[in-house]
Amino acid sequence: MIGIDWGTSRLRAYLLDGVGAVRERRGSDAGIASLGGAGFDAALAPLLAGWPEHAPMLMCGMIGSRQGVLEAPYLACPADPAALARALVPVTIAGRRAHIVPGLSCDPPDVMRGEETLILGAGITDGLACLPGSHSKWVRLRQGIITGFHTYLTGELFAAIVHHTIVGRLMDSDDPADWSGFFDQGVDAARAPGAALTAQLFMVRAAGLLGRLPVRGMRPFASGLLIGHEISGEAPAGTVTLIGEDGLMARYARALDSFRVAHETAGAEPAPAGLFTLARAAGLLG
Amino acid sequence: MIGIDWGTSRLRAYLLDGVGAVRERRGSDAGIASLGGAGFDAALAPLLAGWPEHAPMLMCGMIGSRQGVLEAPYLACPADPAALARALVPVTIAGRRAHIVPGLSCDPPDVMRGEETLILGAGITDGLACLPGSHSKWVRLRQGIITGFHTYLTGELFAAIVHHTIVGRLMDSDDPADWSGFFDQGVDAARAPGAALTAQLFMVRAAGLLGRLPVRGMRPFASGLLIGHEISGEAPAGTVTLIGEDGLMARYARALDSFRVAHETAGAEPAPAGLFTLARAAGLLG
Repeated sequence: MIGIDWGTSRLRAYLLDGVGAVRERRGSDAGIASLGGAGFDAALAPLLAGWPEHAPMLMCGMIGSRQGVLEAPYLACPADPAALARALVPVTIAGRRAHIVPGLSCDPPDVMRGEETLILGAGITDGLACLPGSHSKWVRLRQGIITGFHTYLTGELFAAIVHHTIVGRLMDSDDPADWSGFFDQGVDAARAPGAALTAQLFMVRAAGLLGRLPVRGMRPFASGLLIGHEISGEAPAGTVTLIGEDGLMARYARALDSFRVAHETAGAEPAPAGLFTLARAAGLLG
Repeated sequence: MIGIDWGTSRLRAYLLDGVGAVRERRGSDAGIASLGGAGFDAALAPLLAGWPEHAPMLMCGMIGSRQGVLEAPYLACPADPAALARALVPVTIAGRRAHIVPGLSCDPPDVMRGEETLILGAGITDGLACLPGSHSKWVRLRQGIITGFHTYLTGELFAAIVHHTIVGRLMDSDDPADWSGFFDQGVDAARAPGAALTAQLFMVRAAGLLGRLPVRGMRPFASGLLIGHEISGEAPAGTVTLIGEDGLMARYARALDSFRVAHETAGAEPAPAGLFTLARAAGLLG
């Protein structure tokens, strides 16, 4: 089969064998955001060149959003792999028949697209999973059922603060050597009882102006603040399973240590295994 | 005397008589942000045309910042009008001799420039004053002494969210008729115990996507969230005195009502009275 993980910024294609092992992987920067609602066929076709024409194809991620090739309605939580498999949406793309994995919704109002497939591929069936990113997801599971989740605007808000507020104007270039200590200080500030995020964000600027925080420490401190407030808001109990990109997971692991919350890391690249599991559950593999 | 209130976005000049009454007011859009560190003389001179050449002149606001004509060092809180008067910084500008009111600093690290003069001009000597804006200030006073303050990035963060995150992308145009109800819902959401701002901001988008919140309600809901989190963070006891622009004060008054916090409104345009009081205390009026 062919598995497609088509997100906001990246397009990834996998050719999988009969037991779900990756035989070949291809990718491009043709994410949904860069396409602007058109050119899906042209973006995908070159990645499929030479792959079996009639192989079942399953796609997850923002390709099923309003900005994608076809909007796949959200499936409401609680939802398990069987419910996701029943809700796949057929589509024709790049001259091939394919299906799209629907996103999930829950209450209080929240949505995801793609993360449900990553969690499934990571083999998580119980507990709390955290997928850090522009829109960090904290997902609760019980016996293979996704029971609910919360999304935090952490990554995107950090970028908006750095690039579009006075707090970012003083900030220095991003020196990795300076991250850890100032990042930890930000996490600690967020852990303080009654900590108000919007006041602490201005404090980052004031501390820089007054020489209480070196200018090179402002960016990691602000990152620690936002991630700390995210963890405070979630107040995780039990072990958290981190899924995502290494650098970001390292920051979250460090922040979880400050909160004395146990954590473990899922294997890399869970998308193909998730897509394979759903394709099999939907009977697409014949 | 001549009083100058020179802030980030506006330049205001007042000609005051011997008892501090405003005889004439002039203004322009030559705020500090628009000047980029130069052209102060050229921006100010036309506003002073025809005013007495040797009148004492006192300036407050961002004109005394690093981006202004001369950086006036912050005076540390607690600070009273006499201490501010002793800390005025002499400067020559537009061919005239003048003084700059220093900003205030406090601990945990925070800074203000200009608000100290507005509070003084509003005649507040005890209790809690709130100056809503891009950087909302909550200022504590006791017997005429500013004992400390907190700044919230509320207004600037709201603009960054609306214009530079996915939350703002769905938002409709700003229809004043729709403000009150959705704004109140946002304030109420912020009041909930354990409310996490960054999760609630993503919820605004999800609620819009899922049809739980009309698209026209997203902007006022987000405004209510941010102002609600500001008030939650400050947890004001006693009566709050609001100082500022009418439209914004009305929103804060509405949010304070939701929190059942008493409030009153200071008179409009407190800057000239504050500048007059400081000029007199500094002996500039002869």
